[in-house]
Amino acid sequence: MPVNLAAPDPASLLPVAGVRLGIASAGIKKPGRRDLTLIELTAGAQVAGVFTQNRFCAAPVTVCKLHLAQGDIRALLINTGNANAGTGAEGLARARRTCKAVAALFGVKAENVLPFSTGVILEPLPVDRILPALPAAQADLAPGHWSEAAHAIMTTDIVAKGASRQVEIGGRTVTVTGIAKGSGMIHPNMATMLGFVATDAAIAPALMQRLVQDVADVSFNCVTVDGDTSTNDSFILIATGQAGNAAIADAGGADYAVLKTALSEVAIELAQAMARDGEGATKFMTIAVEGGRDRAECKQIAYAIARSPLVKTAFFASDPNLGRILAAIGYAGVSDLDVDALKVWLGDVLVAEHGGRAASYTEAQGAAVMKEAEITVRVALNRGAASATVWTCDFSYDYVKINAEYRT
Amino acid sequence: MPVNLAAPDPASLLPVAGVRLGIASAGIKKPGRRDLTLIELTAGAQVAGVFTQNRFCAAPVTVCKLHLAQGDIRALLINTGNANAGTGAEGLARARRTCKAVAALFGVKAENVLPFSTGVILEPLPVDRILPALPAAQADLAPGHWSEAAHAIMTTDIVAKGASRQVEIGGRTVTVTGIAKGSGMIHPNMATMLGFVATDAAIAPALMQRLVQDVADVSFNCVTVDGDTSTNDSFILIATGQAGNAAIADAGGADYAVLKTALSEVAIELAQAMARDGEGATKFMTIAVEGGRDRAECKQIAYAIARSPLVKTAFFASDPNLGRILAAIGYAGVSDLDVDALKVWLGDVLVAEHGGRAASYTEAQGAAVMKEAEITVRVALNRGAASATVWTCDFSYDYVKINAEYRT
Repeated sequence: MPVNLAAPDPASLLPVAGVRLGIASAGIKKPGRRDLTLIELTAGAQVAGVFTQNRFCAAPVTVCKLHLAQGDIRALLINTGNANAGTGAEGLARARRTCKAVAALFGVKAENVLPFSTGVILEPLPVDRILPALPAAQADLAPGHWSEAAHAIMTTDIVAKGASRQVEIGGRTVTVTGIAKGSGMIHPNMATMLGFVATDAAIAPALMQRLVQDVADVSFNCVTVDGDTSTNDSFILIATGQAGNAAIADAGGADYAVLKTALSEVAIELAQAMARDGEGATKFMTIAVEGGRDRAECKQIAYAIARSPLVKTAFFASDPNLGRILAAIGYAGVSDLDVDALKVWLGDVLVAEHGGRAASYTEAQGAAVMKEAEITVRVALNRGAASATVWTCDFSYDYVKINAEYRT
Repeated sequence: MPVNLAAPDPASLLPVAGVRLGIASAGIKKPGRRDLTLIELTAGAQVAGVFTQNRFCAAPVTVCKLHLAQGDIRALLINTGNANAGTGAEGLARARRTCKAVAALFGVKAENVLPFSTGVILEPLPVDRILPALPAAQADLAPGHWSEAAHAIMTTDIVAKGASRQVEIGGRTVTVTGIAKGSGMIHPNMATMLGFVATDAAIAPALMQRLVQDVADVSFNCVTVDGDTSTNDSFILIATGQAGNAAIADAGGADYAVLKTALSEVAIELAQAMARDGEGATKFMTIAVEGGRDRAECKQIAYAIARSPLVKTAFFASDPNLGRILAAIGYAGVSDLDVDALKVWLGDVLVAEHGGRAASYTEAQGAAVMKEAEITVRVALNRGAASATVWTCDFSYDYVKINAEYRT
């Protein structure tokens, strides 16, 4: 069961001026499932994205990168039930056919459309079922359909994921709304499975790629469920420029910082939601590593803990098995790490220092922390000023069950 | 249940001249358990080892490295039930006390003794229970106690692991016998949990370190159960020189090759036994990657497949979920990999080529292979002549069960 996670109240997902969303049923994997989402953008909207670094990246990821390079994106098409990955040249052709069909509906070019797919890998994308459903998705377009879209992009997700924020920029109210999906095969190496965050803020096109990368680095690139990097990870940032603020043009200025914070808050909430809804999750874990020489080594150690099946099964069992945490720190690959200098806390309890268990530690203290549904593991490396935080979930019988049964 | 693995017939584990083994009960974790193994070596035996690269390496690993550097090893002491890892300065002192006590029994120096521990991390080594049991272990010393020792060093292992070979070198019969333990926290980065291989061959001391590394690279460094590198991994090679062959002095010669092959066969059998007896294993998987630019990239891809929880749960379900294998190849970190050029086989069935599913592939073919208890995944990268093979097991409910309950 998802850990302290409920689907967002539809009314809490605020419309973003310049964005409309429409949903339809194409019967891609199951008949009747609302599996097709169309997002229409106003002319002049800025769009940027970060994508999986998996070499077997999906056809839609390849097409997205090409189309983004040309700019002027007017529509996004997202299907669930089929990833269109590992599908070779035919997969590319099918992704392009969907773009062409959407472009025809809107009277734009195929290059103005971004395609996204999520679901089973290696199956041909059923374009013949997707294309006939497009007019229904178009007819459904409305600014208030964020919640419906959050539901329509789910695969093994139990709970739909969405979040909104409003901030003031240049005397104008700016809205940020995002949705995401992801529950398994989650170990983003650029972005998550699928994440879409839109704002009506105006921002200079030259800053968009930097902004999407800045936001991804503190959100979707800080979550793991099973250490498996998907073929389809995509995180898309949309800025429609409809809020009426003077376009943000200085990455060092206050307006950029305010917008980045609002976007990051939404993206972090979505990224954490993926770990809370991680396949089979019973516990939400925050791994915070501080005092490192650089952010990279902090992240390396945090991910070693967050990925370890032994650590994750111990958390499932509510067992304060500190040795497994120390072992993961030790094999993280920081070759000159001085294990005698570091400290480890479970919640607020100091559990390890001087290369071993803290003298003050008692098993009862550890057991009390492990009973909680949300647990923080904090590691102080004491060799610098950098830090990194990673979110994950535990590893339960249900993870095995879900993944042993997924295709059947 | 272990996959096609039975404990070796005690009679099949051949004595090695110059080596005697004795077992005793120290009551380290459970009363009455035979948890202490003493190995006595003849004067002049050559010993070399490779050890974990985990920064939280256990106290006995640190002591082993120091003592091996001084040479003249005369005894090994192995306890199960306690890893003496994450125990700081006190752990080192306790490991040294056990060496001193063994040395006193044999009339040698503490530096002539190697200590090994395996079991729970972060608990103080109960030296007060180990020392009184040493005389019983000494009294039990016999050349034929390899099978008893293989049982005595087990932790979560279900089946004891041992193997022997005999070869002719310089007109003399040379014997190789080895034992190992390991079932979880298996992802060696030098050697396995604990492996001991002895031969009566004579070999120049200068070649020992190269030989143990050569053997580890094709055996214990090619197995993974859960991707967790233990704090205690140690692989020790013993050459007593009692076989009467002229000492092997040329690493390029035929005698070195014959001995290396015999040692490697024993070590590979032991390493494979660990995957067959992997925690919760229901399937034994061989991941063979060929046609790479170098062995390192082949191993990187093989390990990405072998470590993936998604691949391992699919094998548990006997589900030919090829997409997960392709995804793991794609995220293995070989940044210039051309996925359109590679081919993948499941058993003898070609399942993927040209960046997608092979045209000739049918689900029925894949399902037939997946029903087997032993399955080979073969990947041809088609960009060079290097290859690497890794052994692993699937990921089942019982892995979670075993590791959620281990300490309780």
